[in-house]
Amino acid sequence: MSLKIPSLQKLINELAKLPGVGPKSAQRMAISFLKFSGEEIQSLREALKDVKEKIHLCQNCFAYTEEDLCYYCQQPSRQKNLLCVVESPMDIERIESSGAFSGYYHVLHGVIAPLEGIGPEEIKIAELLFKVTDLIEKDDQTDLEVILALDADLEGDTTSLYLSKELVKRGAKVSRLAQGVPIGGDLDFVDHRTLGRALQNRIRY
Amino acid sequence: MSLKIPSLQKLINELAKLPGVGPKSAQRMAISFLKFSGEEIQSLREALKDVKEKIHLCQNCFAYTEEDLCYYCQQPSRQKNLLCVVESPMDIERIESSGAFSGYYHVLHGVIAPLEGIGPEEIKIAELLFKVTDLIEKDDQTDLEVILALDADLEGDTTSLYLSKELVKRGAKVSRLAQGVPIGGDLDFVDHRTLGRALQNRIRY
Repeated sequence: MSLKIPSLQKLINELAKLPGVGPKSAQRMAISFLKFSGEEIQSLREALKDVKEKIHLCQNCFAYTEEDLCYYCQQPSRQKNLLCVVESPMDIERIESSGAFSGYYHVLHGVIAPLEGIGPEEIKIAELLFKVTDLIEKDDQTDLEVILALDADLEGDTTSLYLSKELVKRGAKVSRLAQGVPIGGDLDFVDHRTLGRALQNRIRY
Repeated sequence: MSLKIPSLQKLINELAKLPGVGPKSAQRMAISFLKFSGEEIQSLREALKDVKEKIHLCQNCFAYTEEDLCYYCQQPSRQKNLLCVVESPMDIERIESSGAFSGYYHVLHGVIAPLEGIGPEEIKIAELLFKVTDLIEKDDQTDLEVILALDADLEGDTTSLYLSKELVKRGAKVSRLAQGVPIGGDLDFVDHRTLGRALQNRIRY
């Protein structure tokens, strides 16, 4: 379906470039933008410009930031012997909201996915290994623990396995997120693989 | 959850103004925009500007257009004695794609919804009644048929009932879209009210 209104059709085409946004959703979004006030549109356009111009990757952990170092890398009070490895910058916010981690982060910007042609060189693994070596040898963090907080899927598992070997080789302790029944989760709705993992990893009183 | 990156947070706030877009979707969209190229962002920003500056309502039918009259009102070959009343401009595209209508349109920009405080004065009903009177009396379209193509919900039904009375009073023939089982629809998945309506409106061979 092609609209007979060129400017609207162009906006729809631009919005349809968003992952997971089909032509119908793009159309609905475009119509919503059409109903925005002039100031709202102006504000949105400025926000888009700012995001593109101001945001880049943290020099240390590769999270998003507007400065040289991200918000977390700027905090000197965090635990230097704890390093959490995540797939994408937004995972940091999720882990922070748990309140259960007080170390520093490292963003891989992807996971190893051979089927999609993504090997260890395509993501920030060399930088991680270099950082870990540095922390242990130069900063004397001999009790450094690297927590792998990747997705619990095939690619996440592959990447965790690869990283654990490389990191242990360099003298780091390595752990990964526990897998089991979600808090508040009804057993009826937990799939059998998760349940199997929860049984294997059962906590003994 | 508040991000520690002001420009990204601002974009998320702007996107969360879209109807049906929660904070989590807005965040996902903002991150996707962050990954757009500079040209793509520029193109999107221009499209937003153009849509706001160029598009307004058709003087005749209140559809969206960049000109005085919309694409359909500009076509002199359409049937002058057929007028299709829709709730929103995008409904026109849906009806056009059916290929079963060749008259003109009128967009109400809403439906009567007493619970939300929307009465006949809040939408383009006066303009419709005025247009219909004009068509019958001045343009001599004495066989004018107005097809009400509104949603098959409570507000659509209320508005259709209201309009049908007012339009008949002014000498127009009035009809509304048939309600029944969707084409290709499995009876197992058709709700009982639709099935009841399909039985009532059954077509006799």
